[in-house]
Amino acid sequence: MSIDINCDLGESYGAYRIGNDETIISYVTSVNIACGFHAGDPTTMRKTVNLALENKVAIGAHPGFNDVLGFGRREINISPNEVYDIVIYQIGALEAFVKAEGGTLQHVKPHGALYNMAVKDGRLADAIAKAIYKINPAYILFGLANSELIRAGKRYGLKTANEVFADRTYQSDGSLTPRTHKQALIDCPKQAAKQIIDMVKNKKVTSVQGEEIPIQADTICIHGDSTHGISIVKEVTSTLLQSTITIRNFMEKI
Amino acid sequence: MSIDINCDLGESYGAYRIGNDETIISYVTSVNIACGFHAGDPTTMRKTVNLALENKVAIGAHPGFNDVLGFGRREINISPNEVYDIVIYQIGALEAFVKAEGGTLQHVKPHGALYNMAVKDGRLADAIAKAIYKINPAYILFGLANSELIRAGKRYGLKTANEVFADRTYQSDGSLTPRTHKQALIDCPKQAAKQIIDMVKNKKVTSVQGEEIPIQADTICIHGDSTHGISIVKEVTSTLLQSTITIRNFMEKI
Amino acid sequence: MSIDINCDLGESYGAYRIGNDETIISYVTSVNIACGFHAGDPTTMRKTVNLALENKVAIGAHPGFNDVLGFGRREINISPNEVYDIVIYQIGALEAFVKAEGGTLQHVKPHGALYNMAVKDGRLADAIAKAIYKINPAYILFGLANSELIRAGKRYGLKTANEVFADRTYQSDGSLTPRTHKQALIDCPKQAAKQIIDMVKNKKVTSVQGEEIPIQADTICIHGDSTHGISIVKEVTSTLLQSTITIRNFMEKI
Amino acid sequence: MSIDINCDLGESYGAYRIGNDETIISYVTSVNIACGFHAGDPTTMRKTVNLALENKVAIGAHPGFNDVLGFGRREINISPNEVYDIVIYQIGALEAFVKAEGGTLQHVKPHGALYNMAVKDGRLADAIAKAIYKINPAYILFGLANSELIRAGKRYGLKTANEVFADRTYQSDGSLTPRTHKQALIDCPKQAAKQIIDMVKNKKVTSVQGEEIPIQADTICIHGDSTHGISIVKEVTSTLLQSTITIRNFMEKI
Repeated sequence: MSIDINCDLGESYGAYRIGNDETIISYVTSVNIACGFHAGDPTTMRKTVNLALENKVAIGAHPGFNDVLGFGRREINISPNEVYDIVIYQIGALEAFVKAEGGTLQHVKPHGALYNMAVKDGRLADAIAKAIYKINPAYILFGLANSELIRAGKRYGLKTANEVFADRTYQSDGSLTPRTHKQALIDCPKQAAKQIIDMVKNKKVTSVQGEEIPIQADTICIHGDSTHGISIVKEVTSTLLQSTITIRNFMEKI
Repeated sequence: MSIDINCDLGESYGAYRIGNDETIISYVTSVNIACGFHAGDPTTMRKTVNLALENKVAIGAHPGFNDVLGFGRREINISPNEVYDIVIYQIGALEAFVKAEGGTLQHVKPHGALYNMAVKDGRLADAIAKAIYKINPAYILFGLANSELIRAGKRYGLKTANEVFADRTYQSDGSLTPRTHKQALIDCPKQAAKQIIDMVKNKKVTSVQGEEIPIQADTICIHGDSTHGISIVKEVTSTLLQSTITIRNFMEKI
Repeated sequence: MSIDINCDLGESYGAYRIGNDETIISYVTSVNIACGFHAGDPTTMRKTVNLALENKVAIGAHPGFNDVLGFGRREINISPNEVYDIVIYQIGALEAFVKAEGGTLQHVKPHGALYNMAVKDGRLADAIAKAIYKINPAYILFGLANSELIRAGKRYGLKTANEVFADRTYQSDGSLTPRTHKQALIDCPKQAAKQIIDMVKNKKVTSVQGEEIPIQADTICIHGDSTHGISIVKEVTSTLLQSTITIRNFMEKI
Repeated sequence: MSIDINCDLGESYGAYRIGNDETIISYVTSVNIACGFHAGDPTTMRKTVNLALENKVAIGAHPGFNDVLGFGRREINISPNEVYDIVIYQIGALEAFVKAEGGTLQHVKPHGALYNMAVKDGRLADAIAKAIYKINPAYILFGLANSELIRAGKRYGLKTANEVFADRTYQSDGSLTPRTHKQALIDCPKQAAKQIIDMVKNKKVTSVQGEEIPIQADTICIHGDSTHGISIVKEVTSTLLQSTITIRNFMEKI
C-alpha cells in the first residue's frame, strides 16, 4: 500500500519571493511547478526544476490562468478551446526546462481557479485531459478525487491520480466543503492524519454531514506556506509510516 | 544549388490581427512562429502551426522579449542567463503545439531586438545557441549571415542558416545598413532580386561603400505586411527560378 | 429634444491597430477612450485624447478588466473593492492625459464584461458609481438604460446617461437580447433608425416578445468597426435630424 | 536648516508581499508610491495611500517602466515621447487614489532604470519634467542631486528636490559610484550619518577619489528592506536631530 504527497512549487515571480520551496520539498514525493501564467517565470522555472531534480522528487506541470496579479485564483470565463491552448502552452514550456536539465515530466495538475472550474465543468476538464493526451499520453493527470478531471482523464486513457486533502473537510457528495463554510478546514494535525489514514487504508471519508463516503486516495496535497501546514504534513507523514503505508510517487518502481 | 525563404508568422494577439499570414505563406518554405512573448498567444500559435502544416512549410520558433506592447522591438537590458531562460521557455511552448498537431520543429530564429542584440553580442548569442542545443541539437539556428549568432551556433555544433535580406543594403563589414540611414532600404524589386542572385550564386554582396564582400546565403527573410513586400518576393522568386536555383527548406530531401 | 451618440475609441495597442477612429468620430458627440487595461496604451491614449479634442467631441473614460488578450470581454470573478480600485486607477490615468491637453472629462462608461456584469450586479455597479463619485461627482455615468448601473449612479447623486442600442433588440424585462439568440441583432438600418426614434420620441421600445416597454434614451451607442455599423449610424443620424431631434453631448449648453 | 527623508512604498503586487511598509514609514517624511507599472497594483495603491495619510507623510508618485517581472530595474530602449506618456499615465493613476482619499500629491520621483537613465539622458529627463509640468506645475521633481533630472525640472520652472544617499559613495563628477565597484556602498552607519551631515550642513561630499565636491541635499533616500537599512536610517536620523537639523517634507509650513 502506497501514497504520493504533492505540493505546489516555484511560485516566485521576478523580485517577488513566495513560499518555502527549500523546506516543503523535503516532505513531498511530487511537485507541481508553476509555468509562468499565474506565477513563476522562466528563470524561476529553471531553478525550481533543478531544485526538484536535486531532491529526487517527481515533477509535474502546474498550468493556470494567465493572471499573475490574481495568482490564478480568479475565475475567468474562458472557452474549452482556450483552456486546451493555455494548457498545451504551459506544459510545453515546463517540459523544455525539464528536458534541458535531463529530467522527465511525471504529471500535470491544473492550478487554482482552473482546477476548481474543471473539477465541476466536464468540458473544461476534457480540454485539459486532451491537451495532456496530445503532448504525451504517459503523463498522469492529478485532479480532485471523483471529479470531472478524473473522469476526463479516463476518457482519454490517461493515468489519473485522485487527489485528497488532509486539512479540508468533505461534503456527502464527495466535494470539498467550500472555504466560506465554518467547518471547511481541519486545524488539528491528529484529525488530519486520521482522515488521511481512513482514506488511504479504508478508501472512505466521513463527510461533515456524518456520512461515510467512498473515496480513492492516490496523492495528498499539502501546503508549506505556514508553520501550521508543516505541522500537519509532519503528523500525516509519521502516521502513514506507522501504518506501514509507503510514501512514494508514481515513477518509482515497486 | 538551393535556398530557403522564411517569414515571420502568427503575430496576431487576441482580438488584434496583424500581417497577412494566409497570403505570405504561399511564397515561403520556412516560417518563424511568434511564441507569445512579443506577439502571438496560445490560440494563435495553435492556428498558425496548423496553417503551416497545411501549407507544408517548415516550422521554426520565433522567440522574443516579453513585451507585446513594444512588439519585441525595444532593447531590454537582460542577462545571458535570462535570455537562455526565455528562449528555452518559448521554444518549449511552440514545440508542444507542433507535437500536438503531429509536426516537427525545424529551426529557431530570435525576433526583433533580441535578434539585433544577439547579432552583435556574443554572450547573448551563446545563450540562445545553448538553449537550442539543450532542447534539441538537431534544430537549426537562423541568424544574420556572419554574425555572432552563426558563430555561437557553430560553437555548439548546431546546424546554422545564414540569413540574408533582399530589401536591405549591407555595410562593408557585413552588417545591415541601419534603418536610420538613407540608403538602408532597397525599394526596387529588380535590384533586390539582383542582390539575392549575387549572394546565392556568387556568394558576395556589394556594400553601400561599393566594396564586394563575401557572404553566405542559406535563407532569405521576407516581409508580407505590405504590397511592396509581396512584389519584391515575387520578383526574387521568379528570378531565382530562372537562375535554376531551387527554393526549399532544410527538411526536404535533396 | 436632444440625444447624444457615443462610440468606443483608442483601442489600438502598440503595433496593433484596431477600429476606424478617424472615420467613426465624425458621427458621434461623445467618445469612450480605452484606458490601457483591456485596450489602449499610454501613447494611444494621448493621441486619442487629442483626436477627440480636435473633433470637439466630449471625452469619457472607458475602464475595463486588466485583460488585453481577452479585450476585456471575458468575465473575471472580481470583488467590488477590486472593481472600485481598477476604476479609480483608469479614470485617473485618462484624466491626466485630458488635463495635460487642456480638456475636461465628461463621463465614465465601463467596458465589455465589466459593463455587462455591473448591469446586473448591484454591488459591482455600486463600486463603479462610488469610484466616479470619489474622483469627481460631476462626471456622468453612462450605463444600460434601466440597469443597476443607472440605479447605482443615482444613489451617489451622479448624473446618469441611459444608453440605448440601435442595432440590438430588447427583451420584455428591458434587457438586451443575448447575442446567442437568433433575433439579437437588427441588421436593417431603417428598422434600427425606427427603434431609435421610438425610444427617443416616445420613450418606449417594442421587445422581441412584442410588448411595448418604457425606456429612457439619453445616449446611443454605435460601433464603427464595420461598414454595416457605419450605414446604420448614417440612417439613424439622418432620421433623428428629420425628426428635429438635436444630436449633442451633455457638455454643450442648450 | 531642514531636510526631507524619502523611501519607496507600495511595491507589493497581488499575492506577493515585498518591503516593510509599516515599519519604514515611521522613519520618513515623504514616500514614493509605486504606480502599477514596475510594482504595485490598484488595490495596493489605495491601501498605501491610506497608510501614508494615516502616518501624515507627504505622498509622491513613483512611475517606472512597465515591467513587473524586472521590477523596473531593466533598461528599456524607449523614446522620450513614450517616457512622457507613461509618466503622465502613472501620475494620473496615483493622483486619483490620493484625491479619492482626500489627500494631495507632493512630488514625483522616477523609479529604477527610468531614474538611472533620466539622470544621464537630458531628453528623457525633459520628458519626465514636461509630464509633471503638464499635470500640475506645483508638483516637486525628486532627482539625483546635480543630475539631468534636476536641470530638466528647472527648465520647466518646477520645484526640484536634490536627492542624496546615505549608504552610497560618490565619484568626483558628482555621480554615484556604480554598484559594480567595490567601494559603492557605505556599510557603517556612523560613516553614512557623517556623509549626510557633511552634505546637509556643509553642502559637500568627499568622493572615493578623495576630492571634496559641492552637493545640494534636499531629500535623503533610504531603504527599509533590510535590518541594515533600518540601522543606517536610525543613525542618520539621530545624528541629524543632534545637529539641530529639522527633518520635514516640503508641504509643512516653516
